This record gives sequence, C-alpha cells and structure tokens, in this order.
Amino acid sequence: MSQKQEPGGEKELGRLQSFSDGVFAVAITLLVVDLKVPLVDVKTASPSLGLALALLGQWPSYLTFVTSFATILIMWVNHHTIFKLIQRTDTHFLFVNGFLLLLVTSVPFPTALVAQYLTTPAAKTACAVYAGVFVLINMAYNALWWSASSHQRLLKASVSRVQVQKLTRNYALGFPLYLLAVLLAFWNASVSLGICSILWIFWMVTGYEKSPLMSNRSVQ
Amino acid sequence: MSQKQEPGGEKELGRLQSFSDGVFAVAITLLVVDLKVPLVDVKTASPSLGLALALLGQWPSYLTFVTSFATILIMWVNHHTIFKLIQRTDTHFLFVNGFLLLLVTSVPFPTALVAQYLTTPAAKTACAVYAGVFVLINMAYNALWWSASSHQRLLKASVSRVQVQKLTRNYALGFPLYLLAVLLAFWNASVSLGICSILWIFWMVTGYEKSPLMSNRSVQ
Amino acid sequence: MSQKQEPGGEKELGRLQSFSDGVFAVAITLLVVDLKVPLVDVKTASPSLGLALALLGQWPSYLTFVTSFATILIMWVNHHTIFKLIQRTDTHFLFVNGFLLLLVTSVPFPTALVAQYLTTPAAKTACAVYAGVFVLINMAYNALWWSASSHQRLLKASVSRVQVQKLTRNYALGFPLYLLAVLLAFWNASVSLGICSILWIFWMVTGYEKSPLMSNRSVQ
Amino acid sequence: MSQKQEPGGEKELGRLQSFSDGVFAVAITLLVVDLKVPLVDVKTASPSLGLALALLGQWPSYLTFVTSFATILIMWVNHHTIFKLIQRTDTHFLFVNGFLLLLVTSVPFPTALVAQYLTTPAAKTACAVYAGVFVLINMAYNALWWSASSHQRLLKASVSRVQVQKLTRNYALGFPLYLLAVLLAFWNASVSLGICSILWIFWMVTGYEKSPLMSNRSVQ
Repeated sequence: MSQKQEPGGEKELGRLQSFSDGVFAVAITLLVVDLKVPLVDVKTASPSLGLALALLGQWPSYLTFVTSFATILIMWVNHHTIFKLIQRTDTHFLFVNGFLLLLVTSVPFPTALVAQYLTTPAAKTACAVYAGVFVLINMAYNALWWSASSHQRLLKASVSRVQVQKLTRNYALGFPLYLLAVLLAFWNASVSLGICSILWIFWMVTGYEKSPLMSNRSVQ
Repeated sequence: MSQKQEPGGEKELGRLQSFSDGVFAVAITLLVVDLKVPLVDVKTASPSLGLALALLGQWPSYLTFVTSFATILIMWVNHHTIFKLIQRTDTHFLFVNGFLLLLVTSVPFPTALVAQYLTTPAAKTACAVYAGVFVLINMAYNALWWSASSHQRLLKASVSRVQVQKLTRNYALGFPLYLLAVLLAFWNASVSLGICSILWIFWMVTGYEKSPLMSNRSVQ
Repeated sequence: MSQKQEPGGEKELGRLQSFSDGVFAVAITLLVVDLKVPLVDVKTASPSLGLALALLGQWPSYLTFVTSFATILIMWVNHHTIFKLIQRTDTHFLFVNGFLLLLVTSVPFPTALVAQYLTTPAAKTACAVYAGVFVLINMAYNALWWSASSHQRLLKASVSRVQVQKLTRNYALGFPLYLLAVLLAFWNASVSLGICSILWIFWMVTGYEKSPLMSNRSVQ
Repeated sequence: MSQKQEPGGEKELGRLQSFSDGVFAVAITLLVVDLKVPLVDVKTASPSLGLALALLGQWPSYLTFVTSFATILIMWVNHHTIFKLIQRTDTHFLFVNGFLLLLVTSVPFPTALVAQYLTTPAAKTACAVYAGVFVLINMAYNALWWSASSHQRLLKASVSRVQVQKLTRNYALGFPLYLLAVLLAFWNASVSLGICSILWIFWMVTGYEKSPLMSNRSVQ
C-alpha cells in the first residue's frame, strides 16, 4: 500500500491536520469570551469583599470554562492519536472529520447549558442534552476511526493489528455508555454527569497508555 | 515552466494556503458564538419540559449553525482542490484569493438572515440576499480558478487539460444557476433555496469525483 | 553572513511567521462579528421591502467590514514582503513585530469609529483618530523594516541594495503623509480620509511592483 | 537519548507547537473584541470634542488591551524558549502544556478586572486575583519546564547544563515573588501591581539574554 500511495497524500494529510488543529485551537480559545468581569457597586462598606463574593458567585462560569477546555483538549489528543496512525486521507475521511469538527466547536453550548441548569429543577434536560451531544461525538470518532482503519485503508503500514483492535474497542465501548448516560439523566442528572466524567478520565488515560506502545515499536 | 519557477514559489504558496486555512478555520469555529443557552423560568410545574421546549424552539439557530458549517467546509474542500493543482502564486492570485476569503467570512450573515426570516413574509428578500451572496462567491471561485489556469499560468505541469476544462465548466455552470436563484426568490423563496441546496450537493459531489482522477494519475 | 547563521534561525523565522499569520487570519475573520441581522417588523404591508430597506440601511457596517478586511489584507501582503526578504529573526525583531501585530488587531476599532461618525458633525475626531492609528502602524512598519535591514542584519544575502532602498523609501514616505492626514482631519475630514485611501492604493501597488523584480532575480 | 528517540517525535512536537501557537494567536487577537466604539450625542455644541473626550474616557479599555497583549506576547516568547530547547514531547508534557494554555487564554479576564476596579475601593481584590492568576501561570511554566528538563527527558542533546539551571532558577524565582504580590495586594494594590510589572520586564529581559547564548553555541 505504501508504494501505491498518492504522491501528494502526506501533504494533503498535513493540510487537513493543520485545518483541524486550527479549529481545535480557535474553539478552545473562544471559551474565555464567556468569562465576564462582574459589575459590583463599589460604594458599599466593604467593596473588596463585595467584589470577592461576586467573583466567587460566578463559579459556574469558571466550571464551564475549565470543563469545556479540558474536554476539547482531550478530544484534540484523541484526534491526534488517530492522525498519528494514518498516512493519507480521502474525501470520505475528510467529511467525517468535518462532522467531528462541527461537534467539537459546539461543545461550549451543552457545557454552558449544564453549568446554568445543574442546580435547578431543569437539570435532567440539561444533562440529557449534554450526554446526547457526546453520543454524537462518540459516533463521529467511531466513524472517523472506521473510515481510517477499515481494510487498513488509510493506516500506516507500521500500525499493528493489536493497536487497531484496541482503538476500535475503546471507541465502540463509549457508545453504549454515553447512551446509558442519556437515559439515566431522566432518572438522576448527577449519575448521568458522573458517567460522562468517568469516560473523560478514560479517554485521557487511554491517550496515556498508547504512548509507550508506540515508542516500543520504534525501538524494535 | 517548472524550470523557470521562482525558488520561493512553493514556500509562498504554502504561506498563502496556511493563511487561507487559518481564515477558514476561524470562520467555521466562530459560528458557535451565535448558539446561546436559552433562559427558562425554572419555577414552573415542569421545568425540564420547559427547558426542552425552549431548546427545541431554537431550531433556526441550529439550522444556521449546521448549514453555515457545511457551507464553509465544502468551500474549503473546493479551495483545497484548486490549491492542489497549482504550484506557485502571484499577486493577482493573492488578491482574488483575498476577495474570496472576504466572502467566506461573511457566510454566517446571509445564513442567519435566512434562518431568521424563512418562516416570515419577508422570506423573499432573505433568500434573494442569500443567493446573491453565492453569486458573488461563485464569481470569486471563477476568478480564482481563471487566475490560476489561464495559459496554465500557475498550474502544476502534471495537471491535464481535461481536469482544467472540467473545473472551468463546473465553476462556470454555477453562475447562471445562482443568478436564477436570485431572480426566482422574488417569486418563491423555497424554490430559490432549493436551487442553492442542490448546488451545495453538486459542489460536494464534484469534490468526491476528483479524487479518483488524481490517484489514477499518480499510479501511472 | 549565511555561513554564520544560527542552525535554528530559519525554523525560528517560520514559527514567528506562522504566529503572525495566525494573528492576521484571526483578526481578518473576527470582523464579521460586527455584521448583525437587522430585526424588522414582519407584520407590515410589505415586509420584504422593509427587510430590504433595513439591510440597505446597514451600509456603514458593510463599509467597515470591507474596508477593514482590505486594510488587514494589504498589511498582510506587506508583512509578507518583509518576511520574504529576511532569513532569520532575533528578539528585537520579534518585539517590533509584536508591536505591529498589536496595531493590526486594533484596526477594526478606528475603522468602525469612522463608519459610525463619518456622516455626523463628529467626523473630524473620528478621521483624526483613524489617520493617527495609521501613523502608528506606519511607524511600526518602518521600525520592523529598519530592524531587519539595518546593516543588512537579518536580510537574505540575495537581497539587492536597490530593493532595500526602495522599501526604506516607501515606508519612510508614508510617515509625513499619514501625519498630514491627521492634521488635515481637523480642517476637513474627507480630505484626511482621501489621503489614507490613496496611501492604501499605494501600498497595494507597491506590493504588485515587487513581484516581477523578485522573479527576475530568480531567473538570473 | 537522541538515538532511541521516536521517529515521529519531531513531527509530534511540531504539531503541539502549532496548536499552542494557534491558541496564543487567537487569544492575543480576541482582545480587541473588548474595544467598543463609544456612543456620543452628536447634537451638542461641539460634537468633535465630545467624541474626543469619550474616546479618552475609555482609557482603561486601552490599558487592558495593551497590557493583555504584551502579557500574552511575552508568555509566547517564553513558551517559545522552552520549545526551542526540547526535541520531543510526551503525554505528560502535553497535558501540562494544556494547563498552561488554559491559563494563557484566561489572561484577559484578570486584566480586565484590574482595569475596571483599579481606581475604585475594590482594587485590592482585583489586584490579588490578578497576582493569583500569575501564581498559577508561574506554576504552569515551572511544571512545563520541569516536565521537559527533569533527567533531561525531552531536551535536545545540545542544551548545556548551565542553560537548564538558569531557566530552572528564573522560573522558580517567580513563584515566591508572585505569591508575595498576592499577599501585599491586601495591604496596597499598587505595590502588588508594581511587583507583577517588574516581573514582566524580567521575563522580557531574560528572553533577550538567551538569544546570544544560543548563537554562540551555534558558531562553535
């Protein structure tokens, strides 16, 4: 396969990767736009305390900011992982990647929804939507990985069968769990959020795990 | 031609491409800024239902978001296609590309206009403006492609006459159709939008078609 | 000089260029944020006409958008021209470039100021501020070019003395003219704007002129 | 170490650097969004003077804009310095870098807070938060540098022990000073800000110092 490869294949891949990285970079940086300086009446007895309390009272904004940032960063690392294993791209992969980027840029929306309604009686809807968006994102990762790995189409020759199976299994595993999180949200919003949080740690850790595997390969 | 080529030509082209990709990436990511979390009174009998209905009621925003995203993505793929066929740039190409980027960044505006007025009696104006912007965008693509391909000025030596003619024909075809969409908008807004939608599918499919052609070339 | 060059010099330059291009790309794309869909009462006798008139009434926004876009694009081309002639960077150049980027990102502000106050009695102040910002931008280009070219410090060996003198003269010429535009604004706002507009055309044309010179060089 | 290096190590590093540069570029360009054109009543006796005064009255916005810009630029130069000394990346470095980027994008928030409350009785809280954010940023730089330099893990072979010790000392020095600035804010806001400002000049100057060292190395 590496002999028949298009000459411009690697350059194409580079451009798609740069474009995707650009979208991730802008999406992750736009998050700060939602942090607003609180307006406080400074003619009170203790204005410094008033400002401190106003800043503390904005904690849902900070939570949204940090969570969205971490979410997009972990998605970037996982996107990264897929791109490390492929050597070229095609139009199908390009549009699946576009669908994934659409969802990446939309992450601040469900996150802000949860931050705003978590402590209200409308938390169930907010958490169901949040988990629902991640069902879609998981589907996009599955589709992207399938587009790359089916018949080893776009993969580098050096990628082992074990690595492919492991990634396939990890992404496939996410689907029923996020779906469960959507359903459980109607019963208990916190349990739904808990499943999503555990899955974030899982995506972060599976990013960790993969690195030694790859460096082993390069030593042999 | 490849012998007389400027030494810095490919680097120049790379920088123009990176800049353009940056503009596309920012434009496509900025779209999410228009998605706002709805404010719902949570002291009603069923706040979860109220939030769900408020979220559903925002469907024109989601439609704008997804449509603008898909539009910019398809335009990026087509921009991509032109850049794949050229080997250097010059100042004329640079300013035509700048005019195209101006229009690319403005896409969210007519799209939001349609989303807001499609179900109102002012739909005709909204759809005429929408189609009108795509007349301009089509003109920019024609001008960019003409700037690249006239006398094979900026094209790679490997690009065949057939490929050039096909792209020239496709872009030229768009012009009368978008113009028709502008005129028909004053009679029936939905027909106008329908023509624009069919053309999007056409641009997406012609992106698809081109890939096998190119890989054939690389195998020979 | 090219023998003593730092090994990482070109890579450094590449990173500075990418960063600068990123700033230009984001700045040029952010402009669209100021285009807002007008809110029109659709329950009138002719809502389509009402929307059309509301859209036309927003012409100062469109003017600001197109002018800011063209301005930043021409500045990018000129930035480009300087970077094409240098082969390495140093910390002084880096901070002067930073000062220039600060001004580049601020361009939408004076442009919007002029668009909003051009047809009012406060036009003089608006145009004086506009021309004043371009005095600063001209100073930044002069400083950047001086930082690059003084004692041929950062220039490529292939850059001729004539090219250096020409660029030095062009940038130096801008300073008294922009200063004049500031002073004349207090007498007549339109004359001030006219001078700035003529200078934009001058920067665009001098970008045009340089290209043949460079390709001549590469053929010899 | 350079023999056992992963083959894709440099490419990985390049992608992380591009992503980081993208975040810096977007963050630095987003700052202008907070500059708003003032709305002035132009039906007064001297509208030009009114607009001029309104523009001057916005000085805290300009101060925030310039200070945030300079801050992010200096942080970019320092980020740059670390990346120049390393030859590969790993997952730990990647997440520490992500934490740093989170803080970089948040810089406009504490800066705007200080600009808004510096001249009010709530200045102490604003300055304490400002200095507090830079305690975190300093911790992130220490962690990033430690992640890169501990056991020379990710460093290039050519980096001397002296360079490592100097950077380690500089970043470690920042921590107690920023912490002091937080504590002193409760006594005197201006003294706190003064310490932060002196440290900015220090980070800028230590960026300056490093360049000759590196070019010396390359000549030998």
